[in-house]
Parts: sequence; C-alpha cells; structure tokens
Amino acid sequence: MAPPRPPRGFRDFPPEVMILRRRLVSRLEEVFERYGFDPIDTPALEYWETLAGKYGEEAESRLIWRFQDPWSGRWYALRYDLTVPLARFVASNPGLQMPFKRYHIGKVWRHEEPQKGRYREFLQCDADIVGSPHPEADGEVVSLTIDALESLGFSGFRVRVNDRRLLAGVFEEELGLSNPTPVYRAVDKLDKIGEEGVYKELSRLGLGEATVGRVMELIGLRGRPGEVLPEIARRYGGNRRVAEAVSHLEEALSLVEDERVVVDMSLVRGLDYYTGPILEAVLDEPRIGSVAGGGRYDGLIGLFSGREIPATGVSIGLERIIDAGLELGVYSLDRKTVTRAAVVVLDREAYSYAWRVASELRRGGVNTRIDLSRASGQVQRRKALKMGIEILVFVGPREASRGTATVYNVRSGERVEAGLEDVVKVVLEAIG
Amino acid sequence: MAPPRPPRGFRDFPPEVMILRRRLVSRLEEVFERYGFDPIDTPALEYWETLAGKYGEEAESRLIWRFQDPWSGRWYALRYDLTVPLARFVASNPGLQMPFKRYHIGKVWRHEEPQKGRYREFLQCDADIVGSPHPEADGEVVSLTIDALESLGFSGFRVRVNDRRLLAGVFEEELGLSNPTPVYRAVDKLDKIGEEGVYKELSRLGLGEATVGRVMELIGLRGRPGEVLPEIARRYGGNRRVAEAVSHLEEALSLVEDERVVVDMSLVRGLDYYTGPILEAVLDEPRIGSVAGGGRYDGLIGLFSGREIPATGVSIGLERIIDAGLELGVYSLDRKTVTRAAVVVLDREAYSYAWRVASELRRGGVNTRIDLSRASGQVQRRKALKMGIEILVFVGPREASRGTATVYNVRSGERVEAGLEDVVKVVLEAIG
Repeated sequence: MAPPRPPRGFRDFPPEVMILRRRLVSRLEEVFERYGFDPIDTPALEYWETLAGKYGEEAESRLIWRFQDPWSGRWYALRYDLTVPLARFVASNPGLQMPFKRYHIGKVWRHEEPQKGRYREFLQCDADIVGSPHPEADGEVVSLTIDALESLGFSGFRVRVNDRRLLAGVFEEELGLSNPTPVYRAVDKLDKIGEEGVYKELSRLGLGEATVGRVMELIGLRGRPGEVLPEIARRYGGNRRVAEAVSHLEEALSLVEDERVVVDMSLVRGLDYYTGPILEAVLDEPRIGSVAGGGRYDGLIGLFSGREIPATGVSIGLERIIDAGLELGVYSLDRKTVTRAAVVVLDREAYSYAWRVASELRRGGVNTRIDLSRASGQVQRRKALKMGIEILVFVGPREASRGTATVYNVRSGERVEAGLEDVVKVVLEAIG
Repeated sequence: MAPPRPPRGFRDFPPEVMILRRRLVSRLEEVFERYGFDPIDTPALEYWETLAGKYGEEAESRLIWRFQDPWSGRWYALRYDLTVPLARFVASNPGLQMPFKRYHIGKVWRHEEPQKGRYREFLQCDADIVGSPHPEADGEVVSLTIDALESLGFSGFRVRVNDRRLLAGVFEEELGLSNPTPVYRAVDKLDKIGEEGVYKELSRLGLGEATVGRVMELIGLRGRPGEVLPEIARRYGGNRRVAEAVSHLEEALSLVEDERVVVDMSLVRGLDYYTGPILEAVLDEPRIGSVAGGGRYDGLIGLFSGREIPATGVSIGLERIIDAGLELGVYSLDRKTVTRAAVVVLDREAYSYAWRVASELRRGGVNTRIDLSRASGQVQRRKALKMGIEILVFVGPREASRGTATVYNVRSGERVEAGLEDVVKVVLEAIG
C-alpha cells in the first residue's frame, strides 16, 4: 500500500515546521498589533462573483480555485488573497469606524502549477489601512514592512517604492504609449533578465528606438527618495499625475527615514487594483524575488460598497521568507516539540504516582509528557532524548514510596531527587 | 447597492469577535501543550477519495463540501473534520515516533443547512494520541478535556464516557439485536426527547416488550465509574467485549479522579470510526448539546497505512463554547481593539514629531495608533474613546517644541507631560 499523499501542490506541516511557523506568525502579529492593527477573519470561501473582475485576466481564467456547488448550483471560489475579502468585508459592515486598521493572517489558495517555492495553499499575512487617502497611511505601511521584516530576523533588504500614477503619467501620458501593458510586463522583468533583456523585449514590441531609449533611461531611475523624486519632478513635473505622485511619495517617505527605502521606476506589480503608491521588499540574499508587497487601492472597496473608500496595505510573504530563512540559516527546524519534560515511569506499579507527578508539572506550567506505551525506562528515555526534551523526570518504586521524583537535566547532566511539592520549582529552575 | 454578504452559513469575524476567539484559542493551545501535544497542520483540501468511506452515509452524501476541479477533472473535498486528515497524515509520514501526540486547531467545512449555532465553516480544536492502545492514553484524553473546559472558564459540566465495545457486547451480543443502528439512534436522543420518547421510539421498532424494557433499564445505567462499571460487569461480564471494555475504562478512569466524569450507557456518538472508549462533555447550563467529543478509533489509520495503528483523542467544540460563554456572560465582546495608546495630533505642524512619539511607543512595546485622517484633536479623541483605548498621548506645537508628550490616562483622568525619553515608561505605568 503506497502511503497516501496530500493533494499535489499542498503541504502537511509536521510539528518541527509548525513550531517555526507559529513562532514567526506570532512575531508578525506582535508587530501588526504594535502598529495599532486589529485581527479579523473572513471565510475561506466567497461567492465567485465576489472575486470575479478584481485580479486581472490570468488569475481569473487560471489561478482561482472555483467550483460549482453540486447541490445549489451556485459558484464558489476559495479566496485568492485577503485584500478582495477585506474590501467585501468593509462593504458588508458599513458601520466600521474609519480609519479601519486590520490585520489578517490566513490561508489563500491558488491553482498554480506546483514548483519549488510555489504552493497551491499558503499563508498570507496582511495589514491594511482603510479610510485614509493621506500619505502618512502609506508611510505607516512602509514603516510596518521594515519592522515586520526585522522582527522576522532580516536586516539586509530593500523596500522598493513606486506609484501607479508615476507609471501612468510618464509612460502613458508623457511617452505616449497607448498600450502600456506589454511595456510594463517587460519592465517588470528587469530583476530577472537584466537591462539588456528588457531592452530586447522592448525593441521587439515595435516601439521606436527613441522611445525604447527613454523607457530604459526611466527605469534606470532608482535610489534614495530625496534624490530620485526631485529628478522625476524636474523631468515630468508638468504632468498632473506625476506631480501628485511625487508630492504624495515625498510626504509619505519623509516620515520613514530608513536608507533601505528606494524609489524605483522599474517597479510595476501585477495586480490590477492598485491606484497609487506601490511597494515591494526584496532581500539582499538570497535572491528569491519579493518577500513583501502592497500598495494603495482606492477603487477596490467602491466596487462593493458603491462609494469610494481609500485603502492601502502590505502583504508579508511569509512562505518565501521561511524558505529564505532556512536557506540562510536564520531559521532552523531544530525544535521538534514544545514539550519540556518527560516523566519516565520505571515500573508499572508506580504509574498512578507518576501520573500525579505529571499532573503537578502541568499545573505548574511545564509542558509534560508521561509514558503511554508501557515501554522500558531505557526506551522512554531514548525517545525523549530523540525529541530533544530537556528534562527527564524519573519515577520508580523508590520515588513512589518516598513521595519524590528524580529530575535529570539532560544538558547539564545534573540529577536531583525532589519532593513532590518541589518538583515544579526544580524543573523550572533547570529549564532556566 | 445592497451590501455584499459572506456566503450563506459563513461568517466574518470583526476585531471584537476575533480578539475573543484568539484569546480562547491561545488558552486551548496552552493546555494542549501542557499535556505534551505538538501542533501540526494539514491542507484544507484533500482528495475526495481520502475522505470517502470514513464518516458514514449522511456525511458523505450530504455534508461534505466536494467538487470537481474544472481543470484536472479530479474530485477534491474540503476537510470535514481533523481526524481523517490526521489519519492520512500519519500514514503519509511512516517515520513518526510513537506515541505521536498532536494538536490541530483549524477550520473545517460542512454543508449544513445554516441555523442558529450551526455553521458551514467552523474551527475544530483537536488533540489526539496516536500509537498507544492503552487505557492511560484514554485517561489522558479525559483529563485533558476537563482541563481544557476549565481553562475556557467553565466548571459546571459532566464528561460522559461509554465504550463502543460495551454497546456492541450488550446490545448486539447479549440482547441479540441484529440491526442495532436504529436502536442506537433512538438511545442517542435520550437527552433531547427523554425516557418516554426513547421508549416510544424503541417500541415502534418492533422489538419485543421485554427487549425494550432491558434497553431502557440499560440506558438508565449512569453514574460514577466506581459504581456503574462493577454493575455492568456483574450483569454482562461474561461477555468478552464487555469484560474488556469494563477493565479498560476502570483503568483509564481510575487515573482521572474527577467527580464530573460519569459512565453513561446511553452515550452513542454518531461517527462510524470509533472502536473503544467514547466521550462527550456537556455543560450543566446552558443545555446546548455536547461541547467536546471524542474517543478511540483503532481502525481508522489502518485504512490508509495498511497496518493497524491505535489512536484516541478529543475535539473541543469551541464554536458552541463561545455561544454558551456569551449567553452565560462568561465571555463578552467588550474589547474592540488590542491598541492601548492613541497619539492625538493637535496640529499638522507637529505631525512628524508625533510620528516619532508613536515610534518610541511602538518600539517600547505599546500597541499604538496615530492619526491618519487629519481629523481635529476633538474627533481623534472621540474616536479613540469609542474604541476603548485607555491612553491618549497628546502632541501639539508645545510638546513638539519642548520634546515632550502629554499622556492622558482615560480611566484615572490623570494627565502627565513626559519627555520623549520617558513616554514609554509613563504609558506602561498608566496601563499597569
């Protein structure tokens, strides 16, 4: 009988992985809460029409898990991200006090072709500010992104920032590209295929040589906001959208003051719904694409509520971060259990006394296992050590008759016989 | 434009609900970890064939969300509980060290007709011990159930225990019922329809009057294990399965010693896969059915792995517990935010200084909001109070020029102007 598998592209998480994932999720929750975001949750399923028309052609035709309920005939979809569900949530709850700051950590599903680092089910970790059109909201999102990545153990990264209005103002209005999508698509590959590659792709699009040259020059604009933004203003500041974007970004980024923030005219981002600032974080090493991404989407909620409600936010790419952290040795899967103590029962006769010892420890706040296999003391000990449990608490007939337990500290090798009333204290001291 | 809704039978959780849910989930996690259980996760989706044939007729024909992937033509199902996925997980990971103790808190989906207290998506909170056939494992599950309910704030409850072998040995072998399922179904309704109701249902099944009388007498057997188990042994102890079950339960329950544990011959439980002890917890008030349930299922994992691996566990019914806790006033939805401090910006000119104050507070571990709406100080203050935020930190031109912030403790009415370097300390003291 071949062992059964989870569905292709889906993953099981055994304890050593879940212990790491839970630790990282807690850190993110902590940062989100520090910034005044509150948790919400929404259903895994939405009606198909809720997601339809929000993500662009590819996502909708290929990547959204959708299905028809055989009973009702109704079409449902598994959520594809947490942003459209947020927009629906805001519209469903018209009484929310604005600005509404929520974080949401939950699974999303994509019908990807499974490959390294690409999963059909993964966690998204989002923080969004609903109800503020102001640059300080975008600044807060950038600042949160930096603190989130730091709390996850990274310091070598850049936060690339651009603005959809800059792209539209410069490429569409100033350069006169009537069909800018293929240009954006080429520009978006800069990190992957390099300048030469982008140049070739642009040339193939049939733009004049002069236009290609200007595009290339534009996407070379990249650096500290204080340098790049004035340069953009100098060149294209006469364009209304450009001027708006430059002043919005200047105001937002002046609040952040972190040299890892760069304005980068080659940043595009795929999703249809962005309307203003967009951002993406990339690690210096390893080069694995973006580990966080977001931006402003002032039109999305209005699609549900009928009145425009501005919003901006970021999604931290925890899955990629975990892959990177394991690769860099920032994270490890060393911890196989949260259990700190194992009660080793040396003789069946002592079992009910050993159970009392285990109960004491649990009541005292120590994560404790007790033998459930009727294995020999040797085997119990070996299994506990294999799990990485730090404290063995031996209970045999001697301990049962004297009302004690023998606490063995695996690391130090120290062994102490303690009275039942002191076992918790002795174990807590040994754990440190 | 009518506000959009989550799908029928599905729920959004706004912050005040999520804050409560997260608190209760943490408490459960803590208890599970105290008992030496480690977290795992499995996919929301399984192949349909993984779930098929495990839950009985009704679940499979009506209650499992299943669908055909339009691309691959393959049938998938949303997980219906966490037990079958655990069995599949154990079979998928043949190297697991036994006993394997895992907890799993995650959403499951059921195609129920939505009604009060019955949802199409809800959280299951399970702890299971895989690999031990021994009574002490079942005893640990009972003990864990009690501690879990206590940690959730309840003390008035009973844990009803029975054993599938008792049911089989007595009803099928001793009473000679060849088709016991409708009898079990009638017996299972005792709590709902009372003795008279069960009597009527049994009579309608065409059993002889003597048999109905014996069934009624049997299901009246209910009480402390030390009284009921010897009585069952006295009457039916000659039956091999009965003798086995009685000695298994005696050994398991002797470890627990809690007067809320009762052996109850009318406990049946619906799921097909149980093979030994079964349990169910019910609150004394309100009478809302069981709030935890579980049992031993020694055959389930073998369906996947080809070799029998014993297992036993419990599922804590957090959704019903929340409904009950809110009804009893054990829980409230008072806490609308996790934010403790709001920086009130009294003048736009002071904004970037106010931002520094907010950054200090966040770095110091205080969950902090800062104005993002350019609202008046009055409005900022009113909104913060409405959210229940305890500390207002006023920053205006005076504070900016003096390098201070004015900390206002909403509860005490105290107001202190503190230097930037002391703001964190002052706020932490005020929060207490």
